[in-house]
Formats: sequence, C-alpha cells, structure tokens
Amino acid sequence: MTRTLQSYVEDTWWSPATSATGTEVRDAATGEPVAIVSSEGLDLAGAMEHARTVGQASLGRLTFHQRAVLLKKLALVLTERKAELYELSSRTGATKSDSWIDVDGGIGVLFTYSGKGRRELPNSTVQLDGPLEPLSKDGSFLGRHVRTTLPGVVVQINAFNFPVWGPLEKFAPAFLAGMPTIVKPATPGAYLTEHMVRILVESGLLPPGSLQLVSGSVRDVLDHARLGDVVAFTGSASTADLLRRHDAVRSGGVIFGAETDSINASVLGPDAVEGTAEFDAYVRQLVTEMTAKSGQKCTAIRRAIVPTASADAVVEAVRRRLEAKVVVGDPRDEGVTMGPLVSVDQRDEVLRQVRRLADGGGKIVVGDQQEEGRDSAFLSPILLRFEDAEAPRVHDTEAFGPVSSVIAYDTPEQAAELVVRGGGSLVTSVASADPGFVATLTRRAASANGRILVLDAAAARSSTGHGSPLPMLVHGGPGRAGGSEELGGVRSVFHYMQRTAIQGSPEMLTAITGVWHPGAATRGDAHPFRKSLDELRVGDQVVSEEREVTLDDITHFAEFTGDTFYAHTDEEAAAANPFFPGRVAHGYLLLSFAAGLFVSPEPGPVLANYGLENLRFTTPVSPGDRIRVALTAKQIIPRETDDYGEVHWDAVLTNQDDETVATYDVLTLVSKDAHAG
Amino acid sequence: MTRTLQSYVEDTWWSPATSATGTEVRDAATGEPVAIVSSEGLDLAGAMEHARTVGQASLGRLTFHQRAVLLKKLALVLTERKAELYELSSRTGATKSDSWIDVDGGIGVLFTYSGKGRRELPNSTVQLDGPLEPLSKDGSFLGRHVRTTLPGVVVQINAFNFPVWGPLEKFAPAFLAGMPTIVKPATPGAYLTEHMVRILVESGLLPPGSLQLVSGSVRDVLDHARLGDVVAFTGSASTADLLRRHDAVRSGGVIFGAETDSINASVLGPDAVEGTAEFDAYVRQLVTEMTAKSGQKCTAIRRAIVPTASADAVVEAVRRRLEAKVVVGDPRDEGVTMGPLVSVDQRDEVLRQVRRLADGGGKIVVGDQQEEGRDSAFLSPILLRFEDAEAPRVHDTEAFGPVSSVIAYDTPEQAAELVVRGGGSLVTSVASADPGFVATLTRRAASANGRILVLDAAAARSSTGHGSPLPMLVHGGPGRAGGSEELGGVRSVFHYMQRTAIQGSPEMLTAITGVWHPGAATRGDAHPFRKSLDELRVGDQVVSEEREVTLDDITHFAEFTGDTFYAHTDEEAAAANPFFPGRVAHGYLLLSFAAGLFVSPEPGPVLANYGLENLRFTTPVSPGDRIRVALTAKQIIPRETDDYGEVHWDAVLTNQDDETVATYDVLTLVSKDAHAG
Repeated sequence: MTRTLQSYVEDTWWSPATSATGTEVRDAATGEPVAIVSSEGLDLAGAMEHARTVGQASLGRLTFHQRAVLLKKLALVLTERKAELYELSSRTGATKSDSWIDVDGGIGVLFTYSGKGRRELPNSTVQLDGPLEPLSKDGSFLGRHVRTTLPGVVVQINAFNFPVWGPLEKFAPAFLAGMPTIVKPATPGAYLTEHMVRILVESGLLPPGSLQLVSGSVRDVLDHARLGDVVAFTGSASTADLLRRHDAVRSGGVIFGAETDSINASVLGPDAVEGTAEFDAYVRQLVTEMTAKSGQKCTAIRRAIVPTASADAVVEAVRRRLEAKVVVGDPRDEGVTMGPLVSVDQRDEVLRQVRRLADGGGKIVVGDQQEEGRDSAFLSPILLRFEDAEAPRVHDTEAFGPVSSVIAYDTPEQAAELVVRGGGSLVTSVASADPGFVATLTRRAASANGRILVLDAAAARSSTGHGSPLPMLVHGGPGRAGGSEELGGVRSVFHYMQRTAIQGSPEMLTAITGVWHPGAATRGDAHPFRKSLDELRVGDQVVSEEREVTLDDITHFAEFTGDTFYAHTDEEAAAANPFFPGRVAHGYLLLSFAAGLFVSPEPGPVLANYGLENLRFTTPVSPGDRIRVALTAKQIIPRETDDYGEVHWDAVLTNQDDETVATYDVLTLVSKDAHAG
Repeated sequence: MTRTLQSYVEDTWWSPATSATGTEVRDAATGEPVAIVSSEGLDLAGAMEHARTVGQASLGRLTFHQRAVLLKKLALVLTERKAELYELSSRTGATKSDSWIDVDGGIGVLFTYSGKGRRELPNSTVQLDGPLEPLSKDGSFLGRHVRTTLPGVVVQINAFNFPVWGPLEKFAPAFLAGMPTIVKPATPGAYLTEHMVRILVESGLLPPGSLQLVSGSVRDVLDHARLGDVVAFTGSASTADLLRRHDAVRSGGVIFGAETDSINASVLGPDAVEGTAEFDAYVRQLVTEMTAKSGQKCTAIRRAIVPTASADAVVEAVRRRLEAKVVVGDPRDEGVTMGPLVSVDQRDEVLRQVRRLADGGGKIVVGDQQEEGRDSAFLSPILLRFEDAEAPRVHDTEAFGPVSSVIAYDTPEQAAELVVRGGGSLVTSVASADPGFVATLTRRAASANGRILVLDAAAARSSTGHGSPLPMLVHGGPGRAGGSEELGGVRSVFHYMQRTAIQGSPEMLTAITGVWHPGAATRGDAHPFRKSLDELRVGDQVVSEEREVTLDDITHFAEFTGDTFYAHTDEEAAAANPFFPGRVAHGYLLLSFAAGLFVSPEPGPVLANYGLENLRFTTPVSPGDRIRVALTAKQIIPRETDDYGEVHWDAVLTNQDDETVATYDVLTLVSKDAHAG
C-alpha cells in the first residue's frame, strides 16, 4: 500500500486517520504511486500556537551566533545523508544536476546563513540598525534603531519545484532571526520535503517548536494568523492575490511575503553578434534555463530579447544546441539531461499556456505543440518567436516548463521598455561587452527587477547563471514577481524582525542594546586590556595620560615613514591649505601615539588589533598640542566556537582644550581566558 | 464670497468650474467660513502621468545631492514666509505651539533630509546597498545591491491634523529619492496646505512635475495607479483597509504605505513613585500629549499604564496639572494653551468614542462627558480610568482628541503585555530610572512598536517628547499603526527606490554603479593625487615601490610611539600568541609606511586625509618582509556647494609574496581646481 506522509507538529510525528482522504502523488517519470498526502484532522491552530510559545521561547534563549552554529550543524547532517534526498528527488523528475540545485543549493543556504550570521550579526538577540542619532546638544538624549524578533510563527507555503531548497531558503533566515517555522510543501514533492524534515528532526539539534511540517493543506492558515506572524508564500500570482485579500493580511498586521513566478527576460546586446563570446554565453545560458528543472523555475528565461539583426542567428543557435545537448527521458537513465515535468497535470497546463502564446502571435520555431492528455509528463523544449515584440501575451503569459519566446528590439531604450513590460520580474540578464549599453539598460530596468545578471566574457567564466538565486543576493522582485524579498544575506533575516526607534539617555540605550553608548557610565577600576572577555563589561575604560606632540615628532615621523606631505613639512604651504592652521601632525602619527598611550604591553587577554572602523580626524593637531585618548569597551562579541571573541572599543582622542581630535573604533581579539596570551 | 481653493496640476494652477459643488471649511474657533474645497473635473490621471513623465525626467536629471540642496532652499523659502502659515494655521484651531509642531516641524524635515542626503547618500542617482559579495574565487564575478528610483508617482493622502508637516514629511524623502509627488491634503486644513504649496511654487525652485497639489478628492487614485507608483496614506485604519482591497495594491504592484492612528501607551516604571523625577516627567508628558494639538495626534498617549500602587497618584497629579496649565479657547487669544478640535464634526466623533470607552468600563475621572451637537469645536481634556486593565475597549478604541485612559499593572511582564494589546503602535514611552525594568519592557514591547521613548531624569532634560516623530527616526508601526515606515533619515528614501541585486564582472559593476570595483580596469598614467576632482576618474591608481620593514623599524616605532605591545617587542611572547609567527610590525606602522609610499608631497588638489574606513589587517608582517601599496580611486563625490569633494580610495597593502597584508578605504578631500593647494 502507498505510504501516507506524516506531518511533524508540536514536536511529534503525526499521521492522519486511516479513514482520511488524501491526494496520491506519482513518480513523474514512471507514473508509479509514491505517497498519499493528507493533513485531514491536523490541528493547525495548535501547531501555530506551539510555535509562538514553545518555539519562540526555545529560540529566544539562543543568540544570533548560537542559532548560526546550529544552522551549520543542520547543514552537515543533511550533507551526510544527501544520497537519500537525491534518491527521492529523482522521483520528482529531477536529473542529478536538477537535484544538485535543489539539495545542495538548499544545504548551501544553511551554510551561508551560518557564516553570515556570525560575521554580520552580533552575538546577542538585538540587532542595531544604523548609527547613533544625537537628539540633544548635551548628549543626554540619543536615538538608535534596533531590530527585535517578531513574536509569532512563520508559515511557509512552498511551490512544487524545489522541495528542499524552497523550505530551507525560508527557514534559514527565519531561524537566525529567532522565529519558529511551519513548513508546508507543495503536494507533488511533499515526500522529499518530509524526508528532509525527518533528517533534521532525527539530528536532535532542533530547539523545541522551532520547526514543524504540515504534509497537506494549510488552507485556513490565515484564519489563525495574527499580528507578529509571517506567511511566506511561493507560487502563482493568482494564489498570492487570493491570500492578500484576507483580513489578517489587509488589516490584521500579518506579514505576507510572496515570491511568484514572473516573465523574466534575457537581453542580448547589440554588440554581442554571432561569433562573440557574449553571443555564445547568451545562447548557452538560454538553453540551460529552458531545460534545467525542465524549465520549472520561477527564475527561468521566458523572454529572449535580442537585436533584430541577431534574431535569426539566436533561434538557429538555440535550435542547434538543444538538438546537440538535450536528451529528454527518465532522469535515472544514463545520458538523460532533462527529466519530465513534475506531473501530467503540470505538463498539460504548460501546453495550454503554449497554445495561449501561439494564439497571441507566437510561432513555434523549435520543438512542437505536443498533444495533451497523453499519460506521461515528458515535454520537449519549445522556442517561440513573436514578430510583434509588443504582443501582450509574450509579456504576461508564463508556460512553466521548457518554453521561451524570442522577441526583437532596435534601440537600447526599447530593450529596457520590453524588459519592464513583464510587470516586475525576479531576474533579468543581459549579455554584452559594452559597458555603456549595460549601464543604460540596467539603470532603466533595475526598478522592475529583483536581480540583474550581466554576462560578458569575463563573467561568463564563473557566472552562477541567470536562474540561480544565491543566498547572499536578494531573491524576489516587484509587481508580478510578488513584491517581496527573500535571501540577500542578513537582509532577509531582518524581514523577520521589527525595526524600532529607541530614544533615551545613554544609560538606557546601553541597557537595552547591550552596546555602550557615549555618555553612559564607565569604569576605570583596572586597565581593560588586563580583563578577559568573560570579565570585561561594556563601559570598561582607560583614559590615558597626556602626550605633547612636538615639531620634532612631526618632522621625525615624516622622515621615518616617508610621508612628507606638505601639510606636515612646510609651514607656509600648510597655512595656505583651507583646513590647516599651519603645519600639523600626521593623522597616522596621532593614531600611533594613541596606541602608545592606551597599550598595555605585557602578554594578556588582548590578542591582536585586527582592524579599525569609522576613523574621522576632526581637529588638526599643531606642534605643541597635547593629546590624550579615552578607550572604552563598546561591544563584546564572544565567539561560539573559539576561545576568544571580538571587542570593539570606542576611541576618542582629545587635545589640551578637550576638543575632539579624532574618533574611531578599535577592533581587537580578546581571549576568554584571563591568563592567555 | 468664500474663496475656492486651487489645485496645482501639470505645473499650472487649476480651479474647478464655478458650477462645481464643494465642501465648505470653517474656522475651528469662530465657525467663520474659510474656504471651499473641490476637485470636481480635475484630471487626476493626467496629473499622475505628468508626474511619471515630466516629473521623473526633471528629477532624474538631478543627483541625490542636487535634490538635497533644493530641499534646503525650499526650507529657507518656507522659513522666510512662515508667518503666513502661522496665520492660517490658527484657523485650524492650532495654538502657536501647535503651529510650531506643524510648520517648523515640517520645515525641519526638509532641513534634516537636505543634510542627511548630502552626508549619507552619494552624489549620483544610484545608491549602493551593503558590501561587495564575491561570487567566484577568481574575482571575475561579483554581486552588489543597488537601489534605483521607482519610475512612478507618489500620491500622498494626508490626515487633517498636520496640514504642513504631513505633506512635507512624505515629500522630502520622495523628492530626495527622485520621485515626483502629488499632495492631497485632508479637507479641514486644505487651505493651509494650499498656501504652503503656493509658497513652494512661487519660489521657482521646483523642477517641473516634481510637486502637484489636489485640493479635493483623489477617490479614484488607485484606478490610475500602476507598478512603480506609491500611495502614501495617513489616516484611519478603516480607510487604509479599504484602499488595500484595491486590485492595484493587491496584485498590481502599487506600493501602499499606511500610517494610521494607534492606541499608543505610556508606561510608568515601578520605581518611579510620586516624588521622583521620572514620575514628574511622566505626568508632564502625559498632560502635554493630551493637550498638544488638542490631542489630535496619531502619536498621542491613549493608554497610561501605571503600577497599581501609583494609579491614584497619577490621576491626581494629572488632574492638578491640567487644572493649573490648560486654558481652552480661541488659539489667537492671549493665555490660551489649547485650541478647539478641528471641526464640530470631529468633536462629536471624539465624544462618541469617549462614550464607547465609558460603556466599555472606563470611568471619567478628570473632565466630563460634554454634550454633543453644540455649535462649537471646543472640548476640555478627559481622563478615564479602567479598573479592568484587560478591558478590550481601552486597547482598541481611539478618541482622537484630548482623551487618555489610565490602567494599572502589577508586574513588568504584564506591563509589556498591556502595551502589546494595542495591536501595534506608533510609539510607546516608559518613564523609569531602572535599567533592568526598561530593558525588559523595551525588548518585549519593541516588536509591537515603531518607536519607544525612555524617560529618565537624564533624558527628561532634553526629551523631544512621546508624541513627536523626528525626521531621523522611523515613524510608523506594525499592525494597527499601519505597518509602514516613514522618516528615519535615509531609510524612508529607500522606500521610494527598488533594491536590485546586480551580478557581473568588475568592469560591468563599475559601469553600472559609477564606483570602482576590484578587478576593473585601472589607469596609472599620472599620480592620481596630482589630478583635480574634475580630472580624476574612478580606477585612477598609484602602485607604490616596495619597502622593507626591518626589525629596527619595528623597535624604533615601539620606542617612538610608546606602543611596546609584546607582539612587537618580545620574540618569544609574540610567538606564543596564536596569530603571530613571532615579532611582527605594528599595524599603525604599516599604515604609516603605506602613506609614505603613496603620498605625493607637493601642494596639489588633495587637501586632506579626513578619515579611514574598513581597515582590516589580514596577514602579519615580520621583520624583513617587504610591503607595497596599491591605491585606487574608488568613489568620487563632488560637493554641490564647495569647491572640493570627497574621494574614497581603495588601499591594498601586499607583501613580497603578494599576500594581502591590509585593506582599507582612505578618505580624502580633493579640490575641484587642479591648481589649488
């Protein structure tokens, strides 16, 4: 008997009653039944509340870095068992390289978010956004923006085409943000998602309530959603529209994110005529995008926008390459490069859209209008050509399979307008070696795109491809593409957090953020460089002695370093400079003296000064001026997997009149152990 | 005869036909007719298209800095003529200090955006978001996020309470982003907005199509809106909900921003008992928020959440202060501190909501339930008290006038929960001297708030107040507050731009962004420090000679600067450090030598090195190593109002094995004139 998929709710595996009615899912190539999918009787409201309570609590106890470390461990667990995922993936019609996009692509998202989380977020639960905003002259009232975790649950509604990558690319940033997730896969590949979740659950690494799975329908999710929850949808524009009508989204404050398929374009530059590297790269990419995942990608190229003069050559080159490279068949068979569509229904839907395109002025120039209704999900690639580049259907109709249309343009402006006619796209690519053309097209078309890929000979060597969203780059686009953003490194983490402006005294901002703010209490009980990371507290400070900067110092430094810039060596010329009263000390001399003033020379917990940020020289230092430096521990970032961490120090250099000479942040590595060094 | 207000469309003043039916607006205090408002017959679709074509083109020819300079000039023009605005403002019921919030507050937004635009945005039309993302090992394929102007029009729909500030706080960021605006004021104060726009138009400073005014209705705006347009709404949650139902918003890609009134809270800390500075500051602020603009502020305090033990004292103190400080009357009369509501209708609406609150468990403890229907818009302040802090109406009913309710809590957690019960607020304030309480409350309540103000004795001195949105801080909040963000410095500029990930070769990213990317072409024809800002191009580069760093250099530098950190002075201790092979050169020594290597000593266009960013030391330098530096012009930012500008240089320090020793950005001021210096 065909197995019924389980759901994972409230930290337990759940099965529907045997009497439940379910949907049967079949192997895309063989038609053999694989699984029954049903969530009949599942307590979705209970699962959501479990996430908001248990999930929020368990994730809330972890810092960004601790969550990031877990993401890496989860990625390793999936890597170890990925053969199991590949095996199941082929049943969806995916070739090995299709599965690589889905499985390894998904695991890669976890790795990237693990790395970015540790490098780009603090090791705490509050993220600071932007610089301090002084709100009063005396420094007693400051403003700062913080981000904190939204208090609800993320319910993912996924598309069928990426059963592993789809859930993981939404899960990783939500998890890092501290929000628990409920995954709802599309029915066709639900068995693959179920197995992926099973691997994660079996790892024992998941904090309670942080991940749940509904194998089946979440039709009434918005009835149970409320302020603080997020519904992250990937799928058709029409379903997104339907969900947006719900009260919970319109007025209830539920955040609804949508990533919908779009009519993406790929533009060939006028310079990229046949025989150029760019022409070849363009054709290669177009064929790849038509055939990878059998064209079932939201990011696939639907419109090939080419110069009128090159249109015939493009069609011919695509035909040749499709004939030479593409073998359609069971993805488990040797030599097959393109599998079937995910289901017979999906194949018939694609053929319906091809007919719509043909009715709208498209002429099939490669492949043919195959018959609907055959009991097989296979479909050979189809290229259409529209004589009228303005024909509405080429810009609004998506055949979600191995189907693209060629249209021609005459001017760069027209090319950009045709791109924009798609009504908002996930991605547009442009192949050209002409920076002027690329800049014009990109600047005009950027606001209608979430991503633009430029292919020239240099980039073609290592391009990741038109159709591949990358975890470090935003994925999503305006209008037809859904209007949301996913991925993009920490940018998507922030979509799961609320930005709030905080106003208050330095003391209170320090208490709320955990980061020292100028004007808050300081402690000078011991040299802070003698304190280990564990002992150190924000506000620990050393205020140095004064040191005079003599003309000899300046002259000597100029000779020693070779920095004989006239402002340091020529009194008259220096005085003629609009910013200097006469000869002044080198900025680097001041930095060096400051280090000499605040250093604690003996081995101790401070291991290294690895960098500097935000250095500004604000008042020139003349010979005879005396400087001192105040160095205050501002932010302490212990590493989860090392015996040291980063400490950012606030450095303020002042002169004998208490004028600020320079401000900067000193970045150091400090051992957790007091006796290291 | 009462004057009919004009609209300003397609760069011309427009009046409705004399036969048009309009709405009469009356002086809030005297009831005297002030103006007739009607847009009957106005071609709104034409105005929007004018903005998208003429407005986009004229703003698109300006850089961020040029737009910022115009904002300052517009602010100065309004400042010169602000007496005219104050005069009209008093007719809306505003006292002088109410008008100050509206008029000077609005002008202040223009000044702030002018300053922030020049300091925080480049002098171009493309904004870079976040760092470079390497996408290939060989550096031939890079990723970068850019923001470009949305191609449509911003239609503002404003609330009645701030006829000057309301339009300007939306106009400033849109203008800076390069988007043209159509202002639609609320009818009650439309004559004041009309006059403000008239002053701006008469200045002759506005680029064609950049600002239009519709005095009257824009009811069908969404029928004419399309992808690339923004509708920025301020007003009631119910109207926002209605607008969100429209196809253009749900599926057409029109961006809809809403800032709606919310049930804001102010929390008194358990420590802030009667007699403390925080108690006094709390009461003072509560009375101010009840009476400023006669309580007609989206940000006013509707819920005073106080410790049970302090509830009576708060009520008593508020009563005393209201009696001592508040004189209700015609705002033009001497001694009056609170004017009427904006209209009789509005007063009756407030009284209806007060009755709703009273029916829901609120007891009026200060003021009284005044009679509806009297022919006057005056209303004395009303304070209610709810015995049941959980009573739904206190958390969901807004009386948009001088009305607040007191509820009591027992634990910090309960206080936070009560705040959140508002369903999303623009602002919450908390008065306490206890950092622990403040941090707990803030972290729990932040995700339900756009802004949180903390009042302690230190901050109370200079607090800008619970009810005052500031241009540098975000204004807006989740859920009930509308779910959008306004202001917040450049953050709101970005809401009028699309973020797009760009992938390509260094050359192409340089062409698109105007900023040099590592790997793109460089030019070494002359020392770039000899080139004026006008001559300099990104990619201009100097690659220095090599310099050996000797042990003597290190020893000498340690002695000279006093930086005798063991890693530079003690071979054995240095070798024990996990990051160093043995004694190494000081980072500051390397920076100083690098400056000596790339400097061009004679007077010339480079005026000063004013700072440094992103310094990272990546490989230690041992005695005997040889370093060289490559310095490349990365970003050139001419100033609009000075004869110099900023140049950011990419600095890469390498050793004899071509390993990168340090990377940083050198920030310089460079004269536009080749012969300056």
